[in-house]
Amino acid sequence: MSDRVIIFDTTLRDGEQSPGASMTREEKIRIAKQLEKLKVDVIEAGFAAASNGDFEAIKSIASVIKDSTVCSLARANDKDISRAGVALAPAERRRIHTFIATSPLHMEVKLRMTPDQVLEQAVKAVKFALQYTDDVEFSAEDGYRSELPFLARVCEAVIKAGARTINIPDTVGYAVPSLYGDYIRQLREMTPNSDKAVWSVHCHNDLGMAVANSLAGVSIGGARQIECTINGLGERAGNCSLEEVVMAIKTRRDFFDLDVGIDTQQIVPASRLVSNISGFVVQPNKAIVGANAFAHASGIHQDGVLKARQTYEIMTAEDVGWAANKIVLGKLSGRNAFKQRLEALGIELETEQAINDAFQRFKDLADRKSEIFDEDIHALVSGEGADAAKEQFHFVSLSQRSETGEKPSAKVVFASNGSEITSESEGNGPVDATVKAIEAKVSSGAELLLFSVNGITSGTTESQGEVTMRLQKGGRIVNGVGADPDIVVASAKAYLSALNKLASKNEKLNPQV
Amino acid sequence: MSDRVIIFDTTLRDGEQSPGASMTREEKIRIAKQLEKLKVDVIEAGFAAASNGDFEAIKSIASVIKDSTVCSLARANDKDISRAGVALAPAERRRIHTFIATSPLHMEVKLRMTPDQVLEQAVKAVKFALQYTDDVEFSAEDGYRSELPFLARVCEAVIKAGARTINIPDTVGYAVPSLYGDYIRQLREMTPNSDKAVWSVHCHNDLGMAVANSLAGVSIGGARQIECTINGLGERAGNCSLEEVVMAIKTRRDFFDLDVGIDTQQIVPASRLVSNISGFVVQPNKAIVGANAFAHASGIHQDGVLKARQTYEIMTAEDVGWAANKIVLGKLSGRNAFKQRLEALGIELETEQAINDAFQRFKDLADRKSEIFDEDIHALVSGEGADAAKEQFHFVSLSQRSETGEKPSAKVVFASNGSEITSESEGNGPVDATVKAIEAKVSSGAELLLFSVNGITSGTTESQGEVTMRLQKGGRIVNGVGADPDIVVASAKAYLSALNKLASKNEKLNPQV
Repeated sequence: MSDRVIIFDTTLRDGEQSPGASMTREEKIRIAKQLEKLKVDVIEAGFAAASNGDFEAIKSIASVIKDSTVCSLARANDKDISRAGVALAPAERRRIHTFIATSPLHMEVKLRMTPDQVLEQAVKAVKFALQYTDDVEFSAEDGYRSELPFLARVCEAVIKAGARTINIPDTVGYAVPSLYGDYIRQLREMTPNSDKAVWSVHCHNDLGMAVANSLAGVSIGGARQIECTINGLGERAGNCSLEEVVMAIKTRRDFFDLDVGIDTQQIVPASRLVSNISGFVVQPNKAIVGANAFAHASGIHQDGVLKARQTYEIMTAEDVGWAANKIVLGKLSGRNAFKQRLEALGIELETEQAINDAFQRFKDLADRKSEIFDEDIHALVSGEGADAAKEQFHFVSLSQRSETGEKPSAKVVFASNGSEITSESEGNGPVDATVKAIEAKVSSGAELLLFSVNGITSGTTESQGEVTMRLQKGGRIVNGVGADPDIVVASAKAYLSALNKLASKNEKLNPQV
Repeated sequence: MSDRVIIFDTTLRDGEQSPGASMTREEKIRIAKQLEKLKVDVIEAGFAAASNGDFEAIKSIASVIKDSTVCSLARANDKDISRAGVALAPAERRRIHTFIATSPLHMEVKLRMTPDQVLEQAVKAVKFALQYTDDVEFSAEDGYRSELPFLARVCEAVIKAGARTINIPDTVGYAVPSLYGDYIRQLREMTPNSDKAVWSVHCHNDLGMAVANSLAGVSIGGARQIECTINGLGERAGNCSLEEVVMAIKTRRDFFDLDVGIDTQQIVPASRLVSNISGFVVQPNKAIVGANAFAHASGIHQDGVLKARQTYEIMTAEDVGWAANKIVLGKLSGRNAFKQRLEALGIELETEQAINDAFQRFKDLADRKSEIFDEDIHALVSGEGADAAKEQFHFVSLSQRSETGEKPSAKVVFASNGSEITSESEGNGPVDATVKAIEAKVSSGAELLLFSVNGITSGTTESQGEVTMRLQKGGRIVNGVGADPDIVVASAKAYLSALNKLASKNEKLNPQV
């Protein structure tokens, strides 16, 4: 058996399905480029049949990514698979990932199909997918709660039909490492020709064990592909964290004796990019990528670190790219330097005008902030690309004031479909006043579920504040993100960004694998 | 072997050691009371010899907690142990937890002791501790990287000396479940009279496997105590999460066949309290207690949830206390209702004057915010108790304004040792201007490492914003926390709170277990 573990990143598909984490095509391209730099083997770029937006995003990613395989999810039907096949056509290496549920509960309650019907449809789907690519992956949805003999029959049949990768997800995050590892092992043993496919694990973190379960699937079960996401992004408690599972394999090479192709120094930049774009903060005590992961307290422990690093350190901050946060540009940087930096970051602005506009925003920011980091540039272009022109609301200007003992007030100017609107309001604080001023004209009626601000770069309060506002309306949840050195302005931008997302069509389907 | 797993919470000791998470005595009492409501078996309240503050906090907690055992950490020496013994004297049930390193690396590099010297000191320490309580726990620091035969000798000797609990920490978060479980099992098998003690696990999360490792220590290794923290708070990537490990045991009772005494409906209130007090945010995709943990997206998956809850849900939000966020008070609530609520929340204000002051702040808040939640009351009294009078800086008032195209400005009035100081400054944003205004007078020279804001309660922007500012000076890291409906005011409060923490003596030792 190969000692190489394939890293299959699904940040752009399963991660993006988190309530509020939906991304634009341009944001997805930027993340895909960072994933390519990270050297992930497979990038699951989306679910082509979910929406036109997903289809276009996959097609764009398939056109620009050269070093990683680009993959689309597809339900086990011709329509989904042909959408995936067409979207992936420009890719140098492409994979279609088709799935159907195999657990008794899901087959009966959700699909209303018999086991034999499910098996037949799985085989048909794999064969149909082969006309678009010879790299077909099959997933047994809710695989871990399926009956082994039936699942083995399905696996045998899809391998025979031509599936090269067989994925057994713990869809509900219910597994325990030893049980999950044994399950994969038994399944492989019961499946004739199991060695003709690469076996894959896909674990959710509802009980905090996604990483350990994935690794048990590999070390006990013999799987050689791990499906994971940056920052463990994903629905509910999220997916297996790429950074944790990769660093566990690297740090405990003595035990696992396995290789991964990841360039670990790209981990922290990838984490920050995904956090900035999705608006999902990373908690300080998050392994590998949390602000505290490599911070040491004082006292006995620090003494130990000084005496011998290895007393408390099993890996270094440099290994995972913590040193990568460098000042890249400043006030004196010219348009060419800016444009080169955009290219290096995978940011594609489609017209010269768009680059000029971004450069103007960069100069404005550099007037207010002396050190411009990669994170600032990402924030600068977020929601400002070619797709942005189609958006309903744009921030124009704001003035606000608050004084102890008086009611805070804000006056906001914003554009709605091109025409400027001015609105004033009081509120409990300047952010509340700003939101009330916008709502006075827009009347979205959306409910604010979450409000958070994070400094984009550490150092000083001169850093831009990045605000996430999570709105809910009619059962739909969106995250708006806005960045500015003035957090009230950043809040206004975030609120308008969330309103834009609510205004966009909600045609998307979110499969659960 | 018993089927009961003892839950030993070390939020107030190992959790509080996280850079920036240090807590006042009153904050620790509030958390201890919530841990008692949660029905944890043992509360590790601190490390009595670390500082006078730790000693006093343990003593206070020992006086008020009735249903949980109260524990103090102590190095394996008479001085530490007698400090712990004295601090714990008021407790109904008390435990002394003494430790010494047993790994070759730690013994040689850190302790500069021979194995025989370490063994002798461990035995002496346990015997000495027995004069204060018959409930003595011994921890082998860096136990998981120790040599089994030597560690078994140490364990045999300390059990013979009277230790009732033997804890084998994975101090550096290096373990893998199957290896760690086997290690504990082998150690128990090699230790004569191993059945005379309860074996305990204490895992760190550097590779994202603390929960799985702890559970392997229990299911494979036969341990019956798990050391853990709320939200997985702790140095670096933190400790095993109480909420995850408890819900794993409960949800997978079919596999573990074990009981825990935890009242799971108190989990989310405990998580929020610890997050509010420590200033450590919980990421949305955190298992059990993250905002998204029970949120569902639309499409295929939601369809599944509607068709049958158990297709995607392995536990419910109600099980872990998500429904507990209730409106408790409003504008019309009187002083008695307020006082009763303080008592129910474990908030002890020592004088009638302090209660009157807090009630006044409550009325001021209720004027600006119609619904007052438990979280608001906690924020209201944070840093405002009897200890607060001793603090150097207090917020008085603030006015600030910003307008697109102009330089934001702020005027801050604050008290320093009782005398009022007024300062004005411009800045990149209102928060930057506020911090610069304070710094213009205080000249702390501290570096801002992290700035974050979270809505305390969801619902509207009328919610209070809770600001965390993490400052570093001379290698010391503190978190300041401030809450207010106006986030600029909250930022000023957070900055002053951080300055107060920097101004307090830094005499504390942080052991690493």
